[in-house]
Amino acid sequence: MRCLVIKSIAVAFLLLSRPAISQGEAALDQTSDEAPIAIVIHGGAGTISRDSMTAEREREIRGILEKAIRAGYEVLERNGAAIDAVTATITILEDAPQFNAGRGAVLTSESRVEMDASIMTGHDLGAGAIAGVRGVRHPILAARAVLEHSPHVLLAGNGAEAFAREQRLEFMPESWFHTEFRLKQLRRIKAREAAKTESVASDHSPDDEWFSTVGTVALDRAGNLAAGTSTGGTANKRFGRIGDSPIIGAGTYADNRSCAVSATGHGEYFIRHVVAYNICARMLHAGETLAQSADAVVNGILAEEGGDGGVIALDAQGNIATPFNTPGMYRATIDREGNLEVKIYGDE
Amino acid sequence: MRCLVIKSIAVAFLLLSRPAISQGEAALDQTSDEAPIAIVIHGGAGTISRDSMTAEREREIRGILEKAIRAGYEVLERNGAAIDAVTATITILEDAPQFNAGRGAVLTSESRVEMDASIMTGHDLGAGAIAGVRGVRHPILAARAVLEHSPHVLLAGNGAEAFAREQRLEFMPESWFHTEFRLKQLRRIKAREAAKTESVASDHSPDDEWFSTVGTVALDRAGNLAAGTSTGGTANKRFGRIGDSPIIGAGTYADNRSCAVSATGHGEYFIRHVVAYNICARMLHAGETLAQSADAVVNGILAEEGGDGGVIALDAQGNIATPFNTPGMYRATIDREGNLEVKIYGDE
Repeated sequence: MRCLVIKSIAVAFLLLSRPAISQGEAALDQTSDEAPIAIVIHGGAGTISRDSMTAEREREIRGILEKAIRAGYEVLERNGAAIDAVTATITILEDAPQFNAGRGAVLTSESRVEMDASIMTGHDLGAGAIAGVRGVRHPILAARAVLEHSPHVLLAGNGAEAFAREQRLEFMPESWFHTEFRLKQLRRIKAREAAKTESVASDHSPDDEWFSTVGTVALDRAGNLAAGTSTGGTANKRFGRIGDSPIIGAGTYADNRSCAVSATGHGEYFIRHVVAYNICARMLHAGETLAQSADAVVNGILAEEGGDGGVIALDAQGNIATPFNTPGMYRATIDREGNLEVKIYGDE
Repeated sequence: MRCLVIKSIAVAFLLLSRPAISQGEAALDQTSDEAPIAIVIHGGAGTISRDSMTAEREREIRGILEKAIRAGYEVLERNGAAIDAVTATITILEDAPQFNAGRGAVLTSESRVEMDASIMTGHDLGAGAIAGVRGVRHPILAARAVLEHSPHVLLAGNGAEAFAREQRLEFMPESWFHTEFRLKQLRRIKAREAAKTESVASDHSPDDEWFSTVGTVALDRAGNLAAGTSTGGTANKRFGRIGDSPIIGAGTYADNRSCAVSATGHGEYFIRHVVAYNICARMLHAGETLAQSADAVVNGILAEEGGDGGVIALDAQGNIATPFNTPGMYRATIDREGNLEVKIYGDE
């Protein structure tokens, strides 16, 4: 805010001290005077290729991505907080059955939906997360409730559900979350297991890839960053497996001094390399730009090890990076100039 | 290994080229020729003061710390792996009812023991962790089983227990974990809650502090680092709260290129600042030494925010740092010269 005030005084001084100023110059001054806002969302990275995608499904997915990012951008345009833009977008993606979060989440080995989410605010490093919860319509709102209404960062399982009920969050019956698509997917994976097809990875349908997590990073007019991630985890998961999405530092991180990151990919690699915080730390300590840092982690460290996936990242100047080492990543951006882009494939 | 060979050749050359060499010099050369080994353990940080400690309890705790670290050091002396030294020490601390891990862990709001642990190897960034498990005698061995026998990093709750059973890990009845000390502690905390004493933190008995987690970092002759942490979490915890101990990057991290860290403290702060990985990242990217980095995070970042606790840290050269911003931290070190130290208070 202080910066804004100083800028305003400087602009006013310029306008007063210059006797003749054209309309265009004044307009330019006014635009550059406004603090930037920007927003980036993802709907997962993986083996998405044009061959495996029908025109109808592609249209559907592009439509939801656009709807979600516009909802978040509206919040920012109204001088809303970055965290509100994050929840405005992610709740839409959670309700959309096309993504692996909320309704339409993948099924566990026991044919249930167990969801993880996390959220973080960059001005105070506030963080909240939930893991392995059932029935909560919007896991991202449960994560936000942990951030805002508990002394904790991470709650899991039945306890997290009890907390969400205490917070009066909306619950839906298990059947509401299930889609025909995910039931078929689970049957397919289990059939392959039964047929002793060893490597799920090498023999999977493009739709079975692990990474259709959703996430948002946003920058508001006050200069604050926020990040959020929501997922159903991996299809056919067992043993209460928790991936990177609810892990602050791995799947989600936000710090106004560096950047905001939401990740999607093979979670175990993202945890071991502390991906989201790693990108922030390289900016803070190695002096890398957002683009350099995000690229080094996703296309350097992760790619070398076979850690498939990608991230969306945004810094406090409104710079955007969306690197991924998979054939595609569902993503949309509205940059500081207000330009909207919705993309799926790597060659777009 | 290459470094060892070069050093051996250099020493042999020195020995051959010097006609007269005293026994003492030769012995010194031989010692410095061996790759260093070192080990550090902690049994938690908090408001430990001489006033609140009986001589008997102090003797007991120093005795167990010494027994545990000697067990780990023996592994390293026999050219064992750092990860084996980590599990050799932590299993002893888990069995000791004096620490908040395994037997003697704190009780949840529902009078149960729910344990978290994590382990990491620095040569390959291998990691395993379990959260919210009941009945497993040695949670650190369950974390190790996740690292060695699953494709995952983090398993939680009933699923993690099922995995531990499948791995044939030892289980004990709930009553085995309970101690009179922890039952009294829970009663005390609940009585304070009932009396509406608002701040548990400002009115707690020194024994009620949150941080008697245990952990080990070790460096083996092959130059490999490993780190492990085990805890019962916070007394009277609710809602399936998970702290920093099972979070790779927050409570535990190991990377041969930087260092190995195990943390103990107010977990939520340690998660938000990604403490263990933060210390490694500052060494890697900001060129700080182990001592500088560990101090900056514990006595700088955490202390400024009121994030009470400490860490033990060890680099691949055998340098040791054990900063804490609380009055005391149970800790023991055996450095690269073989010197044993067992300490409790801040002024030791």
